[in-house]
Amino acid sequence: MGDENDFRAVTRSRRRATITSAKGELVKRPNGASSADPNSLTWTKPKHKGQETHTRVLPEEKKKYSHNDNLSCHRLQESMLSSASSFRNYRGILNWCVVMLILSNARLFLENLLRYGVLVDPIQVVSLFLKNPYSWPAACLVIVSNVFILVALYTERRLVTGTFSEQIGLIIHIINLSVILCFPVVTVLMLPSVTPVGGAFALAVYTILFLKLYSYKDVNRWCRERMQAKARSLSRSLSCPSTPSISGEVYVSYPGNLFLKDLYYFVFAPTLCYELNFPRSKSVRMGFLLRRLFEMLLLTQLLVGLTQQWMVPIIQSSMKPLQEMDFSRMIERLLRLAVPNHFLWLIFFYWFFHSSMNFVAELLRFGDREFYRDWWNAETVTYFWQNWNIPVHKWCLRHFYKPLLRKGASKLVSQSAVFFASAFFHEYLVSVPLRMFRLWAFMGMMAQLPLAWFVGRFLRGNYGNAAVWLSLIIGQPIAVLMYVHDYYVIHHLEEAAEPAPL
Amino acid sequence: MGDENDFRAVTRSRRRATITSAKGELVKRPNGASSADPNSLTWTKPKHKGQETHTRVLPEEKKKYSHNDNLSCHRLQESMLSSASSFRNYRGILNWCVVMLILSNARLFLENLLRYGVLVDPIQVVSLFLKNPYSWPAACLVIVSNVFILVALYTERRLVTGTFSEQIGLIIHIINLSVILCFPVVTVLMLPSVTPVGGAFALAVYTILFLKLYSYKDVNRWCRERMQAKARSLSRSLSCPSTPSISGEVYVSYPGNLFLKDLYYFVFAPTLCYELNFPRSKSVRMGFLLRRLFEMLLLTQLLVGLTQQWMVPIIQSSMKPLQEMDFSRMIERLLRLAVPNHFLWLIFFYWFFHSSMNFVAELLRFGDREFYRDWWNAETVTYFWQNWNIPVHKWCLRHFYKPLLRKGASKLVSQSAVFFASAFFHEYLVSVPLRMFRLWAFMGMMAQLPLAWFVGRFLRGNYGNAAVWLSLIIGQPIAVLMYVHDYYVIHHLEEAAEPAPL
Repeated sequence: MGDENDFRAVTRSRRRATITSAKGELVKRPNGASSADPNSLTWTKPKHKGQETHTRVLPEEKKKYSHNDNLSCHRLQESMLSSASSFRNYRGILNWCVVMLILSNARLFLENLLRYGVLVDPIQVVSLFLKNPYSWPAACLVIVSNVFILVALYTERRLVTGTFSEQIGLIIHIINLSVILCFPVVTVLMLPSVTPVGGAFALAVYTILFLKLYSYKDVNRWCRERMQAKARSLSRSLSCPSTPSISGEVYVSYPGNLFLKDLYYFVFAPTLCYELNFPRSKSVRMGFLLRRLFEMLLLTQLLVGLTQQWMVPIIQSSMKPLQEMDFSRMIERLLRLAVPNHFLWLIFFYWFFHSSMNFVAELLRFGDREFYRDWWNAETVTYFWQNWNIPVHKWCLRHFYKPLLRKGASKLVSQSAVFFASAFFHEYLVSVPLRMFRLWAFMGMMAQLPLAWFVGRFLRGNYGNAAVWLSLIIGQPIAVLMYVHDYYVIHHLEEAAEPAPL
Repeated sequence: MGDENDFRAVTRSRRRATITSAKGELVKRPNGASSADPNSLTWTKPKHKGQETHTRVLPEEKKKYSHNDNLSCHRLQESMLSSASSFRNYRGILNWCVVMLILSNARLFLENLLRYGVLVDPIQVVSLFLKNPYSWPAACLVIVSNVFILVALYTERRLVTGTFSEQIGLIIHIINLSVILCFPVVTVLMLPSVTPVGGAFALAVYTILFLKLYSYKDVNRWCRERMQAKARSLSRSLSCPSTPSISGEVYVSYPGNLFLKDLYYFVFAPTLCYELNFPRSKSVRMGFLLRRLFEMLLLTQLLVGLTQQWMVPIIQSSMKPLQEMDFSRMIERLLRLAVPNHFLWLIFFYWFFHSSMNFVAELLRFGDREFYRDWWNAETVTYFWQNWNIPVHKWCLRHFYKPLLRKGASKLVSQSAVFFASAFFHEYLVSVPLRMFRLWAFMGMMAQLPLAWFVGRFLRGNYGNAAVWLSLIIGQPIAVLMYVHDYYVIHHLEEAAEPAPL
């Protein structure tokens, strides 16, 4: 191998010749590194900095051989995903999630269409409200409700004139309010012509009315107490007649508020808490009004369409597994139902709490548009329940929770009481229209208490938030399946018995 | 209606009595408002502030009647979701996306299990590599590759001693490199005992070797040019023998690098760009090494399992629609395939570019761990291709793109050339092992150019990022389906013909 020896000779000679120039070489090496991206980090920062300064010493070197810096194109650094790296930017992941969600749901939608064809049928919706188009029991119920409004107003007027003592007034109010709760129940259970949906609608109206009139009586009582207190403490009475307020509104004070117009404004206003002088917006913004109206119409169609096309087939196909208690298949159906059910709930939320309520508020120039807060960031179950439905939350706080505290009840007791009441009304609104009492909704609501404790105790930040979402996405369809299943068993057993269309 | 008159009288009298006290009442109203949350905004900020100061004037009022502030519990404010509101915190939505993704995929997984049962079978994997356990054609191919490494080293040694002129050296290198590309192709096409997977593996090894040796020859040439330049410019030669460098490593300089050990270190190092002195990490971190090893084993199992359980059934069931060109069903299958395919790709990415490469690097104390950058945040297709596979990107830049620019080619031409080369190798790695030339992969890569133009031109920020994700998630399964379909048509036509298991 003569060549081999030549090669060794060459290298050896170079060694001798240039032993001194090591340093000179050393400083030039990291040219490549100095042009690397700032994201990734090196284990030897100080040294690396030092080298960079060196490279600036001989720029003409670099220019002369444009590929010299190529000679070293690596440098000490960690992979971005390894814990030692300081890189933490995963913004793209959110977009990934969105794309994946859209795709997988597009797939579901297509699969659904291929399997069932188009099931959307707007006409069918009407039949949900009416059995016989010539009898409108639910509508009649709603109209009748005016009677109770008048009773409440009449009682208040008697109270302020002193014709009624506080006791009598209270009794009348209690009777009036309990009738409001019981009368529709009796009617719905008596009249078979009331459809579940129609019944639910009527009951919802009566429940809202109950809460509103309860608030009405409370606030008026507070005003009287205040008047008397002021009178006693010889300070000049704070009650005052109609005078122009800052916003150019007539400013009403007790008992100047005890008129039909005022009460009916409250009845139609999107709030459950009565107030003598609601904040009013300057004017009706036409564009805003029309946008909300458009949303209302569009989302109604969407809700109906998704229910018919997506919910119903899944529910029907999940009857059989439920009958047979085929567990794994039940779970599969439950998860399958969870997605459309959740989407429907989200759409409903926006439709009701944003579009509809803002529409009414704009129409009535009702100023306070806080119908919900940022429940989607809820990190505890409690936060969710305090922020997703502000009208009800406000009412509970003002007419139920705080009075209980004032009466000396403990925070926990009062909170549980609120949940209990809420559970009652959930059950009330579901069981009566379906004419079957299963307590699923009630238990669902009561289950929130241990859940709230668990999440608050063990989960923080994003985990808590995820847990809240999970309880929403999974919890609802369970209750839905329970009720639908029982409803089928009672009413369409033959349908449920025959093989479901899968 | 005597009562009615009484009532009017009462209100009238109060009016007269307290006409002056309107202002006093006015300032007390917004007590409720002042305690509202800062998030939501009011239309009348300045006034509101003013009122807050007022309320501070009479605190004992508040204490005296703890429910006085209840008298006004509303204030002017917009809904959070309406554009007029300043609220923009939707952090919870990310968690929502994650929960939804997990749930829907849990559902898919369960459905899949119910439909197909357990299909995972680790033994079957072996059969993908070997037809006959006594002949290992792919392994033999890999072993043979050492010959080309030796040829490259031999040529370089001859070049430094001047026994070969630059021209001869170049010719030998070109022949050597082209043989590296052609030899395995011929073998794979000749030997029927080479399975597609085995062939793909062997070809991958040879492709990597090709890129490495190409880089090796370039860098050594650059070193020689530099030596001569230095010699000419009478500056003292920068080449130097082995001397201790900062990191305590022996610092090698040309031609001190032309030894087997050095070359084989480069061959096994997780990089395609040769360098005389790679940055080395201080020591082998055992914990790190074992974690990466654990990841490698786990993810391999996961990849195999998901493929057998999730990919294969979908692909089989999508053969029939493809045969019949049933379009809507093809789309449905494509979307259905996109999800597992994408997950597999993500797992593969982590397995190869993070676990495996870091494992090898740690083992060899190879310092530069930048095998990928944050392609998941890519807002343009170009950015993705520049950052998802750094070793290849670095090689293209150093040995293909920059040299082209130096030769005076325009940026666009050079970029297209790079894409073209990349497209060639994609096709090379797919078509040869499958023994069918369909150009799907080639076209898939070339399609990136117009796509890159479109995204860069029309989409910004998150939309660009989403588009990149979409092209990844949708693009791959299309190519996969194409190849698998053609492969089935050729090899298992009878299988594809009979009704697929749906």
